[in-house]
Amino acid sequence: MKYSQKYYPGTREELVSKIKTAMSPRRFQHVLGVEQAAIQLAKDNQADVEKASIAALVHDYAKERSDSDFQAVIQTKHLDPDLLRWDNFIWHGVVGAEMIATELGITDPEILDAVRKHTVGAKDMTLLDRIIYVADYIEPGRDFPGVQEARLIAQKDLNEAVSYETQHTLEHLLQMKKVIYPAAMETYNYWVAGKLD
Amino acid sequence: MKYSQKYYPGTREELVSKIKTAMSPRRFQHVLGVEQAAIQLAKDNQADVEKASIAALVHDYAKERSDSDFQAVIQTKHLDPDLLRWDNFIWHGVVGAEMIATELGITDPEILDAVRKHTVGAKDMTLLDRIIYVADYIEPGRDFPGVQEARLIAQKDLNEAVSYETQHTLEHLLQMKKVIYPAAMETYNYWVAGKLD
Repeated sequence: MKYSQKYYPGTREELVSKIKTAMSPRRFQHVLGVEQAAIQLAKDNQADVEKASIAALVHDYAKERSDSDFQAVIQTKHLDPDLLRWDNFIWHGVVGAEMIATELGITDPEILDAVRKHTVGAKDMTLLDRIIYVADYIEPGRDFPGVQEARLIAQKDLNEAVSYETQHTLEHLLQMKKVIYPAAMETYNYWVAGKLD
Repeated sequence: MKYSQKYYPGTREELVSKIKTAMSPRRFQHVLGVEQAAIQLAKDNQADVEKASIAALVHDYAKERSDSDFQAVIQTKHLDPDLLRWDNFIWHGVVGAEMIATELGITDPEILDAVRKHTVGAKDMTLLDRIIYVADYIEPGRDFPGVQEARLIAQKDLNEAVSYETQHTLEHLLQMKKVIYPAAMETYNYWVAGKLD
């Protein structure tokens, strides 16, 4: 795909090459899968395909950074100190967006917000937010019970796919006795339980 | 059981009779079952049996009150206005405790806190809080998949029973696509996922 350079100061190939050096080969393959799924969802839902490509390519950019890297950015950028209570799972999106801005020169707020929200979603999600959230779940490399159903739902109805993903991710966390983040609960209450305020 | 009148200004029979007029026969039977389970758990765990009896008898005292009754108490007692966003499920405990104090003359803070926390628990739960939370789940009238396992766990380890109940209640809410309350998530993160702050 040819980038307009409105959102990233370089070509797609240059961005891909920077992403590749920031992560393991396995995660890099995942990122390319998310890009493929996000582009398809963007086309299906009349969204900006270039923004979908960029947001997908950078969504896990910070995933392999150290805890101390994230803690430093939370302090220097004066992010919500409550973030310090959490961990990589939350940081690589919310704090990662700051690293993407600083280190890759991507400042489009819609792209950065999609990165911030890709892990646990949010009550308010733009079309691009929903595309990245769902693409991350259904990309071709994913293999877990229910992923094929999620793909079929995503082809038909993006919002239904957000709901399906949110419900099944929380069910999985519960079965594994893993922490549920407050933002994940808010996403669930809005997109699954339909609580509107 | 003979009450000392330290916590309720009357006999157990007088309290039972007031409770009976406040609810349907079906709920009244549930309340007597919770009292029976709570007394057993109090004996097993060296807790105050009289407080367990009283807290159990009053825990659902306000369950059949109207939404406008609860809304009025939230305002006159200056409770957290955020409570107005929720509903009977949360109100009958948190706001119900105020009604129990005013209308039944029960002011012991430990008893009232156990009522406040009986529905969704909390990170911090006293022995009495845990007894009422678990008794409500395992009382003899309950009949749902897993209740027998919950009873066996409760006989052996009250904290394990809190964890079991919390995990399975949240799983049930998720499967039914029902709202998850922030306090329920905090209970889960502490008692099931073991997140300690």
